[in-house]
Amino acid sequence: MLPLVLYDAMFILSYKDIPFVTIWVEYSDIHIAMKSIGAKPIKRRDGSEVCTVPTYPEKPIFPNNSEPLIRAFDSAHLSLIFPGFKSLFLRTMEALGPASANFFIGVRSADVPLPWDENFDADWKLLEKAYNTAYEWYQMTDGKWIMGDTFSYADIIIGCWLLWHKRVLKEDEWARISSWNGGKWAQVLEDVEKECKLA
Amino acid sequence: MLPLVLYDAMFILSYKDIPFVTIWVEYSDIHIAMKSIGAKPIKRRDGSEVCTVPTYPEKPIFPNNSEPLIRAFDSAHLSLIFPGFKSLFLRTMEALGPASANFFIGVRSADVPLPWDENFDADWKLLEKAYNTAYEWYQMTDGKWIMGDTFSYADIIIGCWLLWHKRVLKEDEWARISSWNGGKWAQVLEDVEKECKLA
Repeated sequence: MLPLVLYDAMFILSYKDIPFVTIWVEYSDIHIAMKSIGAKPIKRRDGSEVCTVPTYPEKPIFPNNSEPLIRAFDSAHLSLIFPGFKSLFLRTMEALGPASANFFIGVRSADVPLPWDENFDADWKLLEKAYNTAYEWYQMTDGKWIMGDTFSYADIIIGCWLLWHKRVLKEDEWARISSWNGGKWAQVLEDVEKECKLA
Repeated sequence: MLPLVLYDAMFILSYKDIPFVTIWVEYSDIHIAMKSIGAKPIKRRDGSEVCTVPTYPEKPIFPNNSEPLIRAFDSAHLSLIFPGFKSLFLRTMEALGPASANFFIGVRSADVPLPWDENFDADWKLLEKAYNTAYEWYQMTDGKWIMGDTFSYADIIIGCWLLWHKRVLKEDEWARISSWNGGKWAQVLEDVEKECKLA
């Protein structure tokens, strides 16, 4: 998911106090831009290539040996919200310029077949259901993070998806998500941005 | 998943040094047996009822505020192995007496439609793929458990599924799973049973 990967790097670098600059490029040029700064592509299991950002050991985002659990959490959370993606993909496409929109449609329609604009209300019900489950996860500890008082990459994952929602959705649509679970999601996004000094 | 729930209680009670006796009942009688010992049913989101066992705070199985992550792990792991369930359901049915087999078919065919005996080889490929992912999770820490050196309910989940496989599969089929990932799965089952004093 391109938006997530990009937000994700931004949150992590900022959280770890590593200086960075943000350069906006067209979707179709991301791979070229990554190669031009010397990022090494790694092969995914399906043979396609993806460029990753370097990681740094200071301020670990997988505390208490939590990396396997958080990787599984990422996968479980994606499975949960994926059924509601059509409406989000539609809004993302609308938010992009023509070149990026075409690229986005080409890449994403392989995962989520077109058309993206039917069953809009049903998609939103699925999205709300997914966030209800995420809310139950957050309720299982006393602290405000997924791991209680300990901030981790699990919270960054949630924050990235929320930032994506907020940036591409119409104002009343983001307000709708913000109202779910007693305002939980606007609060989580605010907390994660603050923790990562991106507020 | 009934077998998991039952193994799960056995592993947890034994791990926590809580005395228990095992009474074998027909599948169709589990609910009656649970009610007869005073277990209170709780309502699932779909309205159906499930009886749970009491929990005890000593020797926590969700260390370091890991309950939400482990619940999500449970869900991600189930999604992974679920596509390979037909072959396992077939063997479970074969291992049961007629009354329990009929009950099992009735309940489980709602989740995994019959017939369960076609595409046996393809199902096994899916199961192997799922275990490859689980293997990657185990490789992400230095210790032998999902949370490194810290034993948790995540390992009990894996152990329960493995014990189910071992009990219902034919000897050569269990040997096949045992051979995956350099013998990892026979080892994990042995480790979990030992940690729970069930070896």
